[in-house]
Amino acid sequence: MRAIEKVQEIRDARWFSNLTTIIIIAYASILGFKTLDEVENQYDLFLRIADYFVTIYFVFELAIKMVAEKRFLNFFKSGWNLFDFIIVAVTLLPLESSNLAAIARLMRVFRILRLFTARPELKAIIDMLIRAIPSIIDIVILMFIIFYIYAIIGSFFFMNLPSGLWENFLVSMLTLFRVLTFEDWTDVMYEAMEVYPWAWVYFVSFVIIAAFVFFNLFVAVIIGEMQKLQEADMKEEIHEDHQKLDIILKEVQSLRDEIKQLKDEK
Amino acid sequence: MRAIEKVQEIRDARWFSNLTTIIIIAYASILGFKTLDEVENQYDLFLRIADYFVTIYFVFELAIKMVAEKRFLNFFKSGWNLFDFIIVAVTLLPLESSNLAAIARLMRVFRILRLFTARPELKAIIDMLIRAIPSIIDIVILMFIIFYIYAIIGSFFFMNLPSGLWENFLVSMLTLFRVLTFEDWTDVMYEAMEVYPWAWVYFVSFVIIAAFVFFNLFVAVIIGEMQKLQEADMKEEIHEDHQKLDIILKEVQSLRDEIKQLKDEK
Amino acid sequence: MRAIEKVQEIRDARWFSNLTTIIIIAYASILGFKTLDEVENQYDLFLRIADYFVTIYFVFELAIKMVAEKRFLNFFKSGWNLFDFIIVAVTLLPLESSNLAAIARLMRVFRILRLFTARPELKAIIDMLIRAIPSIIDIVILMFIIFYIYAIIGSFFFMNLPSGLWENFLVSMLTLFRVLTFEDWTDVMYEAMEVYPWAWVYFVSFVIIAAFVFFNLFVAVIIGEMQKLQEADMKEEIHEDHQKLDIILKEVQSLRDEIKQLKDEK
Amino acid sequence: MRAIEKVQEIRDARWFSNLTTIIIIAYASILGFKTLDEVENQYDLFLRIADYFVTIYFVFELAIKMVAEKRFLNFFKSGWNLFDFIIVAVTLLPLESSNLAAIARLMRVFRILRLFTARPELKAIIDMLIRAIPSIIDIVILMFIIFYIYAIIGSFFFMNLPSGLWENFLVSMLTLFRVLTFEDWTDVMYEAMEVYPWAWVYFVSFVIIAAFVFFNLFVAVIIGEMQKLQEADMKEEIHEDHQKLDIILKEVQSLRDEIKQLKDEK
Repeated sequence: MRAIEKVQEIRDARWFSNLTTIIIIAYASILGFKTLDEVENQYDLFLRIADYFVTIYFVFELAIKMVAEKRFLNFFKSGWNLFDFIIVAVTLLPLESSNLAAIARLMRVFRILRLFTARPELKAIIDMLIRAIPSIIDIVILMFIIFYIYAIIGSFFFMNLPSGLWENFLVSMLTLFRVLTFEDWTDVMYEAMEVYPWAWVYFVSFVIIAAFVFFNLFVAVIIGEMQKLQEADMKEEIHEDHQKLDIILKEVQSLRDEIKQLKDEK
Repeated sequence: MRAIEKVQEIRDARWFSNLTTIIIIAYASILGFKTLDEVENQYDLFLRIADYFVTIYFVFELAIKMVAEKRFLNFFKSGWNLFDFIIVAVTLLPLESSNLAAIARLMRVFRILRLFTARPELKAIIDMLIRAIPSIIDIVILMFIIFYIYAIIGSFFFMNLPSGLWENFLVSMLTLFRVLTFEDWTDVMYEAMEVYPWAWVYFVSFVIIAAFVFFNLFVAVIIGEMQKLQEADMKEEIHEDHQKLDIILKEVQSLRDEIKQLKDEK
Repeated sequence: MRAIEKVQEIRDARWFSNLTTIIIIAYASILGFKTLDEVENQYDLFLRIADYFVTIYFVFELAIKMVAEKRFLNFFKSGWNLFDFIIVAVTLLPLESSNLAAIARLMRVFRILRLFTARPELKAIIDMLIRAIPSIIDIVILMFIIFYIYAIIGSFFFMNLPSGLWENFLVSMLTLFRVLTFEDWTDVMYEAMEVYPWAWVYFVSFVIIAAFVFFNLFVAVIIGEMQKLQEADMKEEIHEDHQKLDIILKEVQSLRDEIKQLKDEK
Repeated sequence: MRAIEKVQEIRDARWFSNLTTIIIIAYASILGFKTLDEVENQYDLFLRIADYFVTIYFVFELAIKMVAEKRFLNFFKSGWNLFDFIIVAVTLLPLESSNLAAIARLMRVFRILRLFTARPELKAIIDMLIRAIPSIIDIVILMFIIFYIYAIIGSFFFMNLPSGLWENFLVSMLTLFRVLTFEDWTDVMYEAMEVYPWAWVYFVSFVIIAAFVFFNLFVAVIIGEMQKLQEADMKEEIHEDHQKLDIILKEVQSLRDEIKQLKDEK
């Protein structure tokens, strides 16, 4: 029992989460520089050692978190713990010498995602984004309808253009996404206008509608969500004030009644 | 009478609108993949069946909505019902074998617009956009004036440039719209600067004015509209508080008068 | 005296300003289509007549506004009247046959600016923009400092690049403005990186700083200004409530004093 | 003692700071035009004189600020004074004839930064930006994680593409930054899609996630910070009102108690 409390103390200590953060960032930097060709040859041994060390540290850290739980299975009840466990487990698989070695090495990149577990502020932003989804979902559906109609019309009329940008529905969707980002959209338009001179109506209307609906509504919803969070306390106070005023009004009125009684008694 | 109530129940049931939503989305996906060449050849029969099924379902659904009304003509009083009716009716026209077959097939795309009838949240966004129009209309007029003046000046000076981007008023408008989206606007400018070295004044001023007025005012108006909606209840409370304070003030003052009377009477 | 009142009635009538608006827009459309080559040849006479008619109408309208004033010179005291007068006067100058004929024709474009005089909503937006200037001026100065430093450094290091995009201070400013709009900025960067491999620091830092400071602060200030206007009444109410609460507090406290006196007297 | 007061008066005078502002801007303009080749040859003597004059003026201004302090070392306690001192001192170094002459000339550009010392409004904006950093830092970390993962995956799969845009981790980061600004991102995508047809998933997801998270959250945070500043006084009032209502409520309730006592006594 004593031992578990000691382990729990370590798990909840600030220095322990800071240490984890530093090790993740250091490891991520090393992994990044590993891709610079010249570096790889010179420091190869060093990189291998770093890799082993981080793997061992992660297993050790996970072990502490598991031991700290009174019941072993409680550990897996938290989504974030499960997330940690999977990331660590995957990089433990002995795939180095198999055909999957390259993929296995790539998986190690996702270790940086463990920063979310380390920094609560990042969790808060992710939570905010998740909470904003219901407000955004309808704009996304609206967006999909616009894309869908334009993609069908586009692939119907422009299908045989030499650039092949409209050769089927999916490619048309990709081309429209490109137009949405304004990336060389006039090249796409000018090519279509050579065959259909009125094609500018299609493109200009798409830019206005999609950029209007998508961009501005999107921004408005996100800003609205952020402000809801920030002004939550102010709104709370205003709402309480509203109720307090009702109480005061009642109090004053009953006061008046009593004064009246006083007067009448006389 | 009993039969009508039964039909109305079906019409208003959540499962009925969900079923319609799923069928619309499924059909839209099928229609999208129809444009992928290889798919069309293999699944052609399947696609035809899906088409017949959806047409029949839509007629059936419309019939339910019509029968559910006590008076048949009431059905057409709702704008959304009329909208539904037209979309269904157009795809019922026997144009398959005529010259308009291609157009008729294209019209079916607009069946996805029936999602608006199915999901009330989408109607709400459309309503919000419609309500925002009066606030936006003046910015659009302002924008048109800026475009107009620049288009006339542009087609006056740059009319004979080899690219033909300024050959008449309408083409100049399109070119300015392109500059507004920053799409290869420097190519247009550098071409003009070869003939008129001061042409950068024209382009830079347009980018600053149009992007400034258009983009920022636009965004500000949209965000303002969204916030009006979201803060409507808070403003309502603040306004009510404002009036309640007046009542309380009066009450307290008349209280004081009465106390004074009490004292004077003594 | 009677005649002046009649003229004033006409000047202030809604139908008169609406008529002016319609004539301005119709004339602007005609002027726009005049630049379409084929049209010019066929309808040349019609266009000339429209031109004469609008000129006469404008003189007539201006005359009404002048006559409606009790003292002739009062007319010129309003900035908007002066603005109208100059636009009309310039197009009256007999420059058709002189060397300035082309310029004179161009000046007619600015007649569309008379829409500002006709629609008060447009005046309001312009006023808002003018009022927002003091808030923006410091961001513009900040922006200028950033542009200035980067332009000097850029023209110092990249002066001899073959594209000539940095050949002197002014051209460097233009190139940086282009980078600010993200227009082919990587082409400019890759060219510089061939000579100075670290040049990406220059470009990436400029994009982050200039787009960060310029765009976001700019948007924030504009949105802030718009909200100040929209929430002015709510803030006014909150401020009044604040003062009313003080009055109520005083009233209640003096009430209590008086009650105390009542008790003490007993 | 009298002399110091006189000097302090000069230092704090509005005309003195205005004079400094004008001299800085005039000098910055001259420095800008110095880079125009033709100008340099003709006005070379004039430019040299301006340079000497500004150097002397800056030393003079700094001397006044130093003398105005009662203790000489107090001058260096202010960060802005130190900032001024370094800028002036660097340009005083006799590097004209040495190998560092070019660098020395470049350093003079930073004299424009002394505008910050002259205009307090600019200091305020810089302060606001510095205060906004804590709110932004987590979004920047989030951004870094997204960039990091995409850069590793990108350089893993696309390393051997002929354009060399993914040849190592750092170059991949730069390429992703380019994609973030939408600058010819489809060219990068189409090149990758020739080898990996599914590469559009990588690019489209990056554009959606990075532009979504980065741009919108960023804007939301900046706008939120600006509004916090602007609405600080309103929130203060609402908070004070909240507390005043509590006081009033207590007062009214104790009033009622006393009235009750009055009644009971009878």
